Amino acid sequence: MTQELKPLLAKVEHVHHIIGKKWVNLIIHVLMEGTKRFSELHNIIPDLSKRMLNERLKELEECGLISREVIPDRPVRTEYSLTAKGQELGTALLPVEAWAMKWL
Amino acid sequence: MTQELKPLLAKVEHVHHIIGKKWVNLIIHVLMEGTKRFSELHNIIPDLSKRMLNERLKELEECGLISREVIPDRPVRTEYSLTAKGQELGTALLPVEAWAMKWL
Repeated sequence: MTQELKPLLAKVEHVHHIIGKKWVNLIIHVLMEGTKRFSELHNIIPDLSKRMLNERLKELEECGLISREVIPDRPVRTEYSLTAKGQELGTALLPVEAWAMKWL
Repeated sequence: MTQELKPLLAKVEHVHHIIGKKWVNLIIHVLMEGTKRFSELHNIIPDLSKRMLNERLKELEECGLISREVIPDRPVRTEYSLTAKGQELGTALLPVEAWAMKWL
């Protein structure tokens, strides 16, 4: 394999491992609009159970794609935003989404 | 779920089902350079077995992403090219590849 392809292979397999999981692209897509509370995300994507939404948000936080902020209000609110890394991924995914809407 | 998101969800899940399989992004990346024979593809990506390469190429042909042409030479050659649909997908994947190279 050429020198250029070896690192690309590992990194593209890694990115698809992240974005290929069900709901991930959609969550990133929705967060591109701006910060959202957990309940807002759940209202926008009601087909996604709260348990699964929570799991995906944790995974995305562990990947450094989203940040989670606890607002010490009553009741306590939890807000999710894309980090710079997540924002750039969301932007990079837009052409893929446009391709899917055109061709699939 | 909003009216805009429902079709997007189905289509983005579909595109990730296609591009999330191991080797697919790399094969598309290599074919972006132009038409390649089976043996050329195998030489560029030797870590990918001939059997798996053949399987992936068949799947990509079934998805309408690549076309396969048999050249009646001696010996017979088989050449693979991206279709317009595949070319556009390859272009849409470039920002995702660039993101992966930067952030992963």
